[in-house]
Amino acid sequence: MSVPCDELNVPPRVLLGPGPSEMHPRVLRSLATPLLGHLDPAFLDLMERVKELLRWAFQTQNRLTFPLSGTGTAGMEACLCNLLEPGERILVCVNGYFGNRIVDIAERCGAEVMRVDREWGKAIDPGSVAEALKTGPFKVVAIVHAETSTGVLQPLEEISHLTHESGALLLVDAVTSLGGVPVKVDEWSIDAVYSGSQKCLSAPPGMAPVSFSEAAVETIRQRKRKVQSFYLDMTLIDQYYGTTRAYHHTAPISMVYALYEGLRVAHEEGHDLRAARHRLNHLALAAGVEAMGLALHSEKEHRLWMLNTVTVPEGVDDVDLRKSLLQDYGIEVGGGLGDLKGKVLRVGLMGYGSNRRNVLLFLSALEALLSQRGCKINRGAAAAAATGVYTSSSV
Amino acid sequence: MSVPCDELNVPPRVLLGPGPSEMHPRVLRSLATPLLGHLDPAFLDLMERVKELLRWAFQTQNRLTFPLSGTGTAGMEACLCNLLEPGERILVCVNGYFGNRIVDIAERCGAEVMRVDREWGKAIDPGSVAEALKTGPFKVVAIVHAETSTGVLQPLEEISHLTHESGALLLVDAVTSLGGVPVKVDEWSIDAVYSGSQKCLSAPPGMAPVSFSEAAVETIRQRKRKVQSFYLDMTLIDQYYGTTRAYHHTAPISMVYALYEGLRVAHEEGHDLRAARHRLNHLALAAGVEAMGLALHSEKEHRLWMLNTVTVPEGVDDVDLRKSLLQDYGIEVGGGLGDLKGKVLRVGLMGYGSNRRNVLLFLSALEALLSQRGCKINRGAAAAAATGVYTSSSV
Repeated sequence: MSVPCDELNVPPRVLLGPGPSEMHPRVLRSLATPLLGHLDPAFLDLMERVKELLRWAFQTQNRLTFPLSGTGTAGMEACLCNLLEPGERILVCVNGYFGNRIVDIAERCGAEVMRVDREWGKAIDPGSVAEALKTGPFKVVAIVHAETSTGVLQPLEEISHLTHESGALLLVDAVTSLGGVPVKVDEWSIDAVYSGSQKCLSAPPGMAPVSFSEAAVETIRQRKRKVQSFYLDMTLIDQYYGTTRAYHHTAPISMVYALYEGLRVAHEEGHDLRAARHRLNHLALAAGVEAMGLALHSEKEHRLWMLNTVTVPEGVDDVDLRKSLLQDYGIEVGGGLGDLKGKVLRVGLMGYGSNRRNVLLFLSALEALLSQRGCKINRGAAAAAATGVYTSSSV
Repeated sequence: MSVPCDELNVPPRVLLGPGPSEMHPRVLRSLATPLLGHLDPAFLDLMERVKELLRWAFQTQNRLTFPLSGTGTAGMEACLCNLLEPGERILVCVNGYFGNRIVDIAERCGAEVMRVDREWGKAIDPGSVAEALKTGPFKVVAIVHAETSTGVLQPLEEISHLTHESGALLLVDAVTSLGGVPVKVDEWSIDAVYSGSQKCLSAPPGMAPVSFSEAAVETIRQRKRKVQSFYLDMTLIDQYYGTTRAYHHTAPISMVYALYEGLRVAHEEGHDLRAARHRLNHLALAAGVEAMGLALHSEKEHRLWMLNTVTVPEGVDDVDLRKSLLQDYGIEVGGGLGDLKGKVLRVGLMGYGSNRRNVLLFLSALEALLSQRGCKINRGAAAAAATGVYTSSSV
């Protein structure tokens, strides 16, 4: 049989979509490191350091903190299938694509799911969570911190308070938030949290950092039946990465190198500067987009810094627009998901990718392409507005 | 909090354990390639080529053939949880550690499990499978092609015939066999098969190639309930990597680069030469080990070429021996699992790692360490025996 196997030849891209984001150059270099065995003392030592850096990133003392050998979706599934047993109740807050995914996975775990829905692009209202919690005890309340489908940042503190008052555990999706905005696992009393390597940590996709509170660990310990997934069974993985080093699977060594390097880079920058940088580049992008006469879809008070939903002007075909961005400029942005299909561009400014040159490049390219498509754009206004944000900033 | 984040600094290793094996240098280089988005046409094109190369590797025309975003264990779980529904019956052949793992995962899928057991180190006898099949219809018969825990290669043709005669589907674990010995999925009528990237394909751990026959696809299509794992739901992943390109998860781009390069290298060598090379290096290692007065644990007629179980001499502590191999020579080999704990060294000669210099290096180092421990070893006999095998070979 004839097999097409040309040389690997990847076109250069500027990754400004919802993820993967561009790797930090130091992360890229770390991938070119020869393998260690997964039970080699040198690898176990490295994993300890990864765990410690993840505790720093999650701002937690949680012992059970490590990267799972899968993508963010594996992290979501791991949290749900370890915390839930068939017939148990979960309250899921849904204001975007990933809230819906939590519902799907929880149902596959055999849980009884109740939803709190909110219009896509708006944050979940704590009042509606309080109302829903009155319908009886839930084992878990699940919510997305940073909805990658809508660009909404969800405030968590009040909902955390309500959740714990009701006796439930709080499960948080921090796939897009970790490394970009603060994720204060201990301060906000989050019981289980998952993220991904390929967003604001600027590592390649393939690992899902997770962290579990003592209450969550105790819940898992008291399960009546085995977790339905062997691959994602936290107790077994804890033994593998913990003191007994019992074989469970073969850790993706190269991915661990990359995650380690991504975490080191983040740690060197520090939480405050990193958050300030993401905020500033977001503000510059938003100012530029608005100066062009376009809008951001998400409500202003809850906008994510790392994922911007830019509304596509009336009469412009979003697929065609994204195709031109990719082909003419090598820029990848995302399209709308679910309810927002065709209506928005999803523009990521994540981790290493959140920088001034990407903001200016995107605005310039978008301006050029919209002008070509007959949109009346005040040429140069976007760049001027973005630059103005940088000039007036003290960061 | 103080976080230990020294520079990534990996000691050089010769990986002769049960996996991961050493990456081919071209694979290592491929990892240092910038990312593409997972929905980029260039990535989708690459994935098509990976699928085609995997069909070549599995010797199959199966449309549903792709790498899963997890390790070999995820591949095992994916096959079981897609093929089985709660209450359905599976017959599992167990003659090593990974057979036991299939039992565990099948039980977590809610299946009713019946076992055919055989002593570790021996192949499963088709007669005992025929006996077990008489106890009524099974949905699936599962068997390990290359038991990494014992070094046994399992003949599959007769068992495949019996399985299909009974109306069941045949599920095969090819984690350690793919890329080292022929895995003839179509010729042997295998319905579902999974492997790993980090063994004889010489790529890093993190991907699990799978392939499903049309009968298996039809079985999945006729499921009464959703697959319990969203992450491993074949139908969704098929849509993601297939024609609709519907978002499911974010493919581990760098791992796909590496798997592609590993497959290209294998394809350039070709099935026959690759198998002959694995066989020759195994024979040389076996001759050397026997010349040293040691034995291989697995029965001679069913020995794996890529994983050799070398019995540890009486009075020698295997942990201490492996520690010296690692510390003094940088050589990693595996210890025994389960019933073979403390009794054998598991010496892998996989993919790129199956070469003359590794055979001679391992034999020399083992000879030196055993001599130091007071074993009476005929110095130089191992190297001479191994060299003799190479000299008399026409490969």
